[in-house]
Formats: sequence, C-alpha cells, structure tokens
Amino acid sequence: MNPTLPSADHQRKWIQIAESLKPSLLHTRRDPVSLVQVLSDASAFQGWRVKQTTDLPSLASRQFAAGDTVILDFGQHCVGSFHLELSRHGSGDSPTRLRLTFAEVPAEVAEPLDPYKGSLSRAWLQDEVINIDVVPARVDLPRRYAFRYVKIEIIATSGAFKVSVSKTWCDGVSSAPALESLPQPKNLSEDLRTIDRISLHTLRDCMQTVFEDGPKRDRRLWLGDLRLQALANAVSFKNFELVKRCLYLHAGLLREDGLVPACVYETPSPRIGANFIVDYAALFAPTLLEYAEASGDLDTARELWPVALWQTELLKCFVDDAGRFTNPEKMWVFIDWNAKLHRDAAALGALIFGLGKTIALAERIGMGGSVSPLRDRLKQWRAAATRDLFDRERGLFISGPERQVSWASQAWLILAGVVEGPAAAGALKAVAADASAVKPGSPYGWHYVLEAMFLCDMKSQATEIIRDYWGKMVHLGADTFWEVFDPSDQRLSPYGTHLMNSYCHAWSCTPAVFLRETK
Amino acid sequence: MNPTLPSADHQRKWIQIAESLKPSLLHTRRDPVSLVQVLSDASAFQGWRVKQTTDLPSLASRQFAAGDTVILDFGQHCVGSFHLELSRHGSGDSPTRLRLTFAEVPAEVAEPLDPYKGSLSRAWLQDEVINIDVVPARVDLPRRYAFRYVKIEIIATSGAFKVSVSKTWCDGVSSAPALESLPQPKNLSEDLRTIDRISLHTLRDCMQTVFEDGPKRDRRLWLGDLRLQALANAVSFKNFELVKRCLYLHAGLLREDGLVPACVYETPSPRIGANFIVDYAALFAPTLLEYAEASGDLDTARELWPVALWQTELLKCFVDDAGRFTNPEKMWVFIDWNAKLHRDAAALGALIFGLGKTIALAERIGMGGSVSPLRDRLKQWRAAATRDLFDRERGLFISGPERQVSWASQAWLILAGVVEGPAAAGALKAVAADASAVKPGSPYGWHYVLEAMFLCDMKSQATEIIRDYWGKMVHLGADTFWEVFDPSDQRLSPYGTHLMNSYCHAWSCTPAVFLRETK
Repeated sequence: MNPTLPSADHQRKWIQIAESLKPSLLHTRRDPVSLVQVLSDASAFQGWRVKQTTDLPSLASRQFAAGDTVILDFGQHCVGSFHLELSRHGSGDSPTRLRLTFAEVPAEVAEPLDPYKGSLSRAWLQDEVINIDVVPARVDLPRRYAFRYVKIEIIATSGAFKVSVSKTWCDGVSSAPALESLPQPKNLSEDLRTIDRISLHTLRDCMQTVFEDGPKRDRRLWLGDLRLQALANAVSFKNFELVKRCLYLHAGLLREDGLVPACVYETPSPRIGANFIVDYAALFAPTLLEYAEASGDLDTARELWPVALWQTELLKCFVDDAGRFTNPEKMWVFIDWNAKLHRDAAALGALIFGLGKTIALAERIGMGGSVSPLRDRLKQWRAAATRDLFDRERGLFISGPERQVSWASQAWLILAGVVEGPAAAGALKAVAADASAVKPGSPYGWHYVLEAMFLCDMKSQATEIIRDYWGKMVHLGADTFWEVFDPSDQRLSPYGTHLMNSYCHAWSCTPAVFLRETK
Repeated sequence: MNPTLPSADHQRKWIQIAESLKPSLLHTRRDPVSLVQVLSDASAFQGWRVKQTTDLPSLASRQFAAGDTVILDFGQHCVGSFHLELSRHGSGDSPTRLRLTFAEVPAEVAEPLDPYKGSLSRAWLQDEVINIDVVPARVDLPRRYAFRYVKIEIIATSGAFKVSVSKTWCDGVSSAPALESLPQPKNLSEDLRTIDRISLHTLRDCMQTVFEDGPKRDRRLWLGDLRLQALANAVSFKNFELVKRCLYLHAGLLREDGLVPACVYETPSPRIGANFIVDYAALFAPTLLEYAEASGDLDTARELWPVALWQTELLKCFVDDAGRFTNPEKMWVFIDWNAKLHRDAAALGALIFGLGKTIALAERIGMGGSVSPLRDRLKQWRAAATRDLFDRERGLFISGPERQVSWASQAWLILAGVVEGPAAAGALKAVAADASAVKPGSPYGWHYVLEAMFLCDMKSQATEIIRDYWGKMVHLGADTFWEVFDPSDQRLSPYGTHLMNSYCHAWSCTPAVFLRETK
C-alpha cells in the first residue's frame, strides 16, 4: 500500500463519525465556599495572597451600592456557567449594572484587565458587564467560564436602592464523571497523591465535548495536548469514545495537502484550525496506536491508518537526504514554550518517534509488510541523528551550530530510539548535571522528559521532577496545573501577560500517568 | 358619602383588574437605513452633527478588527430589542468582544459615557459589553432599548480574523398600532403636520404594557405623564383599556395613608414607587374623569371614585385655613423642571384644578349631591387665590415673597378657574409680554400653558408656542419629543448630564391634542 491522500469523501464520513460520538455533558453544581480579599504579597504566587474575609452565609445579608466589590471563592477550579440571584433593599428605580470577572488565579481578579497589552485576543479575558433591568432577579450568564474566584463589582444601582447577592452557583460541566469515582493509586506519599488528584482534576475540567487544551483558553482540541490527555484518560476515566471522536475530527479536517492540523474547532461546525505544527503532525500515529492499544479498538486504527501513513509522506520533507532536520516550509516547530530552545534536534526526534510509532501501528493492524520503506527511513534517520547530534564525549545530544544542550533534545531523541539503555540514561543524567542546559518552559516540555526517563527506567528521578515541578505549583496554590510555569519567573507568558495564561491546561495532567506506573 | 381610605382588599382587586388588562405588544421590525459619523459642530444640537457616510448595503462587506467602530442610523426612533448577525473573515480562534451603545440623540454615541457624573443611576445609560464565543453568530440582546443610533465598537477579535456585521435589526414593540393607521388632522401646514406626527410617534413609543414616561428612562408609569398621554391617546389610538389599566394600577398601589403615588412599577410584580408629588396626586380625579368621558366607561369612574375622593381629604392639608399653599410634609411639588420656578402659586392652582375636577367627576357619576363640602372648599380656595396671588395692577398671578411671575402660575391658576374669560386671557398675554417671566423648562410645563390658552380661546397663540417650542426640537433633529428642552441651553439636564435625559418623553406628546382641536 502506497501512501495516498485521504479523499474528501472519506474525510466527510470521518466528521460524521466524530459528530456521532459527541458526548453529553454531565452537570455538577458547585457553590462558593467563602468570601475573600486578594492582597499584595511578594511571597505569594504572582504577588497575590488570598485571605478569607467572611464566611459565605454572611453574603446574602450584605447590601451593595455602586462602587462595592465582593470576591467569591469556590474553593476549587470550576468549569461551567455562572448563576446568581440578586435581591433588593429599597425602591428599585433603575437597572443595576454589574461587572463579573472570573479568575483561575488571584492575579486575574487583583490586576486590571485593561488597558490590555497582550498578543492574544482581549476577548479571552473572562469579564462580563451586565445590566439587569429589575431586581430581584435571577441572572443566568449564557457562557461557560473556567474559574475558582468570581469578582462581582457593583457599577451602579441608584441612590434609592442597594442589592444583595442572595445566591450564586456554578453549573459545572464535563464529559468525565466525578473524580471521586476514580480509584487512587496505592502507596503514594501524601504530596504525590495531591499531585495525582490535581492532575486528574485538570484532565476532567478539560474533558468537554472534545479534549480541550484549556477550558479558559483556547478551549479547543490540539493534537499535542490530545496525546497526553489520552494517555492520562487511559489510566483514569477510560473515556475512549472521546479519544476516538478527537482522532476522527483531526482525520476529517486535513489541510488540503493532507497534513493533520495542529488544532481543530467544533463550532459552529467542525472546522480546521489555522495552525500547523511539524511535531504535532508527527504525533498522529503515536496517538492512534496508543488509543488502539488502550481501547482494543483496532477498527479505528485500520480506518485511520491512511492518515497516519500519509503524514510520513508529508513530513519526510522536513528531513534532508543527509538525515538532518530542515524546515523548507518554515512551518511552526513547537516542542515547548521556552523561547531559548534550539528546536532542530528535538524536532528530528519527534519525527523519528512518529515514524517509529507509524511502523508499530502498521504491525499492530497487520500492515507490517507494507512499510519496509519506512523501516529503511527510520534506520537512516536514527543513524544520522547519532552521527550529527550525539556528542559522544559529553554523552548527550546537542542542537544547532552553538551545540545547545537542552532537556528537550535528550528527551525526544531518546524517545526516538536514537540511543537506548545506558547511553540514553546517561544522556539524561548528563543534562541533569548541566546547570546551563535549557530547561522546558511548560509542563508539556517536562512531560517528554518524564516519558524519556520512564523509558530509561529512571522512575525515581522522574518522580523527583514531578515533586519539584508539579509540586511547586501545588505549593503555590494550584487547583489545576498550568499551561506555562517557570519557577524562576512566575509571570512568564508567551502572550505578553500572565493574565492570558491558562491555569488549567490539559498537557500538564500526565503525572497521573507516571504516578500510576510507579506502583 | 364621607371620604374613606380604600381598603387593602379593594386595592388587591384593582391590581387584579389592572393585570387582566395588560396588553400584548405588537412587534414591528425596524432596519437601519445608513451608516453615519457624528461630527463636532457647534451649530448642531448639543454640538453634534450626523453625517451619512455610506449606504447601508456596504456594511456587510466591511471587515472590522479590534478598535474599529461603526454607527448605524435607523432613521427613526425605535423601541425594542436589538439583533445582529456577525460573519467572520479568517480563522476564528478567539471570542469576539463588542460594545454596543444605543442612542436617542447623537451626543449619546459621540460623548464618553464614563466616568459618569450624573445623579441618576449609571445603569440607565444604554451600553452593553458582550463577548461572543464563536462567529458566525446571531446575537439576540435580551433587553429593550430606545434609540435611533447604534454604535458598535469592536473591542477585540484576534490577529487571525475580522468580523462583519452582516445584518442588524430592531424588533420594535408597542401596544399601539402603527402610526400609519391614524388619520392626520386636516388643514394643517406642513410644519405642524410634522409636529403632530412626531407627537404621536412619541406617544406610541411610550405605549408599552403601561403608558411609560420614557422608553429609555424611567420606563415607568407616572401619573403626571399619564394624564397627558391619555389626552393624546383619546384623540389618536383610543386604546382606552391601557388608560384603564394604568388608573387601576395607581388605585391599587396607594401609599399607606391612601395617597396616590406619583409613579408605580410593573415588575417584578406591580409595586408602588417611592415618589409622591402633591400636584400629581391632584391629577388622579381629572385623569379618571377625562378617561370616563372619552371612553364612556362610567363604571370604572364609579369604582375608583373613592380613591379620587380620598385624595381631596389628604391634599387639603397642603392648603391652610387662609387658603394658602403650605407644605407641612415637605413633599415634592413638581409642576415643571425649571429650577428657578417658585411653585406655590402653581401648586395651589393644581390642587384647585384637581378639586374642581373631583366635583365634576362626582356629578358625572351621579354623586353630585354628596360633595357640597368640596364645593365650599373650592369656592374658598379660589377666592383666596384671587386675593393673595392675583396682582390686579399687572393683571397676572405672582408667587412667593419675591412676587415671582411665571408662566406656570398663570397656567395653573387659570386652569383652576381662579380667573376666567378676559382676565384669564389677559394674564397669559401679560406673562407673554414679560421677558423676565419664568418660562417652563419642559414640554410638561408648556403643556399646561397650552391647555390654559385653549381654555381662553387663544388658539393661535397656542399654535405659535407649539411652532416655536416643539418646532425648534424638530428643527434640531428630534425624532420624538424630549423630556427637557430649554432652547437657550441644549444641554440642560435635571440629572447632571444631558446624556441621562430622555429624548422620547410622553409628556411632550400633547401637540397632537391641540393641533386636532384647531381643526
């Protein structure tokens, strides 16, 4: 079987299959637990400390006039719609104007959102201005928010009346059941159990009608996030139909040349995103294979095999005849958010990893006989990577003319099988020993380090990274794990403002995978 | 029959009757007619000139990014909900944030609404900030607005997409039928025909489930406005059930002591307003009598007669034994918005007018025999007013220790029957000849001047006032007539900002009454 571009008819059918798998959402009511203030405190995360001010029951008796503000704490990260009931004191002779701000972290209610200077759309920031004609009123905000805190600012009542917030709640939504339904891994220390719980909370809050990257932002299905979510889902909620839906969405929304897009949208109807990432496209085959193995659904693997195979045809243009990563299309190579990272070595690793998994997928579905050319290519690429990128003297991989040493290069080239056994473990130990090595800037980057370490039987070192990196987020108050986290710069953001970062981001959920493998 | 406080049971029943008369609203779609700019121009109304920029059909093809603004002109004053359809250009990768500002007059879209410094609630200003998760989208704003212009500001899309406003419309509402269903008065000059039309447009836009004072603000039933609306309704839409509903609402929501409130609210269920106005309470009997005469519904007059009678009992405390207006409760005496007006003379006039109409009402429903004490009081009050307030030398009424001469004093004391015939006409001519006389500051105040002039057969002078005062509003671009208008100060406002004024205010609709009487 030669690689061929999947037809438009096939893609249409795959979209139909994806849509038939769209899950219903489960609803869980969430109530606030207390009223808080957010105070400036240089020792707290991003400079903001949360202080409980009053018990919640006092809220209904407080009377608010123009200029008053109250901050509700829901005690946990919530995803859902927000509802409030207002009552009136005095003669309601005008509308009431409120501003509601939803916050995953304290900074989002403590710092002004405007003037907005970030690079992504201002519209992602979660604030609403609403006018309510008549109080008493129940207000049902129609949108979905991701938040732990809700700031309610009373912009206007009138001189003749005040308002009380008699009740507020969140109608929480997820396609995954409650966390309490999941067994906890045994024999974990308390701190790791907490990390596991927060990992699964993060995953659950991102499980909507697709595996979203983050329920605050971007609220959509990215292939790189999907792979990690599917891995964590396989050891927890086991909602394989949702993984299947997401695979079919990606397969049904190919770029004109057949490339799997980095992200897709569900609304108003399934459509392709405008982002294309070399290393994400390489993850289609691994994700499909892992899904088939975890779920036992080999039919889907067979049906979508042509998509996986076609990616090898497209992605080979990113490796030249000498086996070096090149980028003729100047396409986005992501790997991680650290801006200092030289990505070529890791990108080659990702391509080789994808190619290896494509071959394994072929074998798994009985097509192994047809992929001999891929085996040759794999062998050639691995040899070239060893030759060009492995610094035998230092025992680790380098990238670029400056011979940059990074965690990402080691992780991806080990996962690619370029080195194995003691040499692989040695590369990881060598990078760990090099304080100047470029570190990952996100949980996504660290995930691949962990995955490489587990491949090298370095479980205890991996656990220490989980404890250090994810544990630090817990220490700083994380209810769910974050999109971006640099312990040395808590306000780091790829978007020009930390207010735009997503603080419940699915690609940070994989400690749940590794902590279960340590059992 | 002695005056008695209507019982709570009676009031409950009257509320039920009022609610049974709640009309259905008629819906009329209104479409914008052009795109405009609002330019600074000292010669235009409030300093803002509207310039058409493009034909409307070009709107759908314009692509808007963050920071763009467009102003729609609906070509007429509309009351209703607002709807828009947005389309997308590019990959919609974020929500879209818009600000919509609804404006009755150009200043409302030309001047910043914040920081707000007015005395009434900021929440009356008609602007909404909305976030739309996915474009293309149809957006149905749930509230009702009163506007001719709509400013749409694109606060945020993203770098990846722009939006177009493919369609907008207003679902116009009124309980009155279209203006086109009404015959125009014959033999009117073009300018007066225009004034008549605008008067009825004003009335219609205020006819909702009650006669509202203004559909932008306060959106509620005021007794002073009701009387004038009922007069205009009687010569136009003849929706007598709506007048009946409003009378029953006032009668069913008395203050504890039985005083008719100045205003009532419909929502969330009928309730009394917090304002009590001496001269408005005096208008209950006249309004009930005029309703009964115009509609022929004497049963309602009989049923609500105890309310009218009880007002005479309460209002007599505002006139001392010598027949002078006093204000022992320091209650609000409105008469007009002109802050310079000395109100005592006019207030006494209003009380006498109300008393006289109460007696006439009693006679109309066959209760004339029971109101002899009221006849005595009327005689005494009129005599006292003549003695204390009529300056025989100058041939007009004065008010207060400074012997202030105002139009309002003449109008109300003439309507009260304190002077009649040539003396009454003389007072009006004398005030007209006195350039220093305090003029009305609102169409409400001018209405009573017109009403007094018609009583004195001064129709041509009344018509000149209509032409000068209402005609000046037309000249300045009025689509509907205004709450407040001082030709010498276009930004005059009782509320600290002209942006808070209502520019479709029912109490300005009575030229339609007088222009029909000139036939």
